[in-house]
Amino acid sequence: MTKPTKPTILVVNDDGVTAPGIKSLMHVMKELGRVVVVAPDSPQSGMGHAITIGKPLRLDKVDLYEGIEIYSCSGTPVDCVKLAVTKVFKGQKPDLCVSGINHGLNNSINVLYSGTMSAAVEGAIESIPSIGFSLDDYALQANFSHCEKFIKEIAMQVLQNGLPVGTLLNVNFPNTNDIKGIKICRQANAKWAEEFDQRLDPYKRPYYWLTGVFHNNDHGEDTDVWALEHNYASVVPVQFDMTAHHAIPVLNTWNFNV
Amino acid sequence: MTKPTKPTILVVNDDGVTAPGIKSLMHVMKELGRVVVVAPDSPQSGMGHAITIGKPLRLDKVDLYEGIEIYSCSGTPVDCVKLAVTKVFKGQKPDLCVSGINHGLNNSINVLYSGTMSAAVEGAIESIPSIGFSLDDYALQANFSHCEKFIKEIAMQVLQNGLPVGTLLNVNFPNTNDIKGIKICRQANAKWAEEFDQRLDPYKRPYYWLTGVFHNNDHGEDTDVWALEHNYASVVPVQFDMTAHHAIPVLNTWNFNV
Repeated sequence: MTKPTKPTILVVNDDGVTAPGIKSLMHVMKELGRVVVVAPDSPQSGMGHAITIGKPLRLDKVDLYEGIEIYSCSGTPVDCVKLAVTKVFKGQKPDLCVSGINHGLNNSINVLYSGTMSAAVEGAIESIPSIGFSLDDYALQANFSHCEKFIKEIAMQVLQNGLPVGTLLNVNFPNTNDIKGIKICRQANAKWAEEFDQRLDPYKRPYYWLTGVFHNNDHGEDTDVWALEHNYASVVPVQFDMTAHHAIPVLNTWNFNV
Repeated sequence: MTKPTKPTILVVNDDGVTAPGIKSLMHVMKELGRVVVVAPDSPQSGMGHAITIGKPLRLDKVDLYEGIEIYSCSGTPVDCVKLAVTKVFKGQKPDLCVSGINHGLNNSINVLYSGTMSAAVEGAIESIPSIGFSLDDYALQANFSHCEKFIKEIAMQVLQNGLPVGTLLNVNFPNTNDIKGIKICRQANAKWAEEFDQRLDPYKRPYYWLTGVFHNNDHGEDTDVWALEHNYASVVPVQFDMTAHHAIPVLNTWNFNV
């Protein structure tokens, strides 16, 4: 069953409106429907679910790629989705929200830090079927072409089947032309071990650059880390209900003396 | 059973190191152990799980309140936790991480947008028992005194019992001197309906202020929204595994033609 009318697709990202990754995503989505892009005017990696509340936002229509309606926004990736829904679509929600393609992985715990994924989460909060896409290549000139047929297929399935209520998809691609297939996964229980590169400014005052190493102690074959290491595209269904439901009975055994 | 040595407690927030809410939290924690504060040098409300990766950070020891070790950080609430663990505690993790007291509620979906809660989430990712505290009063000069006995009791319970692996607590207080007690809750399925206040700058170019109205269609008596409306302090156990585990079998029925 196909939809009677062409779907409307909102494209967002966190690397900024001029990033090659979003251009690749636009071109795939153009084959599926009417594309509207609302993306940050500058890189917003690591912005997580930040929103702008202490200062105003700009939203400007730009003419970057022929035939695609594109807006550049001064805010965060989540701001972009909020402005798109309210000011661009004026409440007429799009049929799909896709975010990316991110220059770099957003597997495992990175779903929390990632502006790309947070934009997709915000789409899902707005009840729009939403997907975030990321590639294991951090270079600005990364080659996204081998991901495109997978992206098209996953987006078509979501348009056709919808997604379970309150969920979205986190899709990550390995950096290989030989992707073996798609694996439905859970988020690996991995984390960053932070290091801060301490330096002195010209006035001898210290400053710190965040660096870190990704540590994975979760070797489950049902994880996104495992799938990517074995050259599969990983698809993790994500929810924005952060309640640890299993912990509620535990806490109910506590006696609070107040 | 009490711990043989005085616990070490990391205090963070998102309203900034000079906010009255964090001062209140410091004073309660001082009764329980050795307090170390690492907080943003400016308000960081709505920063969610943002981290600073494109620019360096400052971390300065400040002498704000007598007898408490306090650091002011130029980054986000999550940056504060990362710098605290790495540079202040140098890997010797504190026994507890508390965040807040936030000037304003962080119930329901606000757990995602809140810098206060994201700092507590980061504490939990670092395997530190962590709690975020928020009060339903957005004023800078909010009165936090009626929350203090509840905060002390909840923190003592966490120090004594620990928390289930991979979880933390999101505690919200109603703005009343007559708090009826503590309710263990789930996150209500509510959301913000955004509005953007559109204005023209002196050069006649439009700009937008984010505003919005909180809409709750989830009237479950087991939700944090219900508890707060009925003058209970709400305690939601939160997890940072965002996998929608229930959706995995659904997605496994899809046939991807790639």
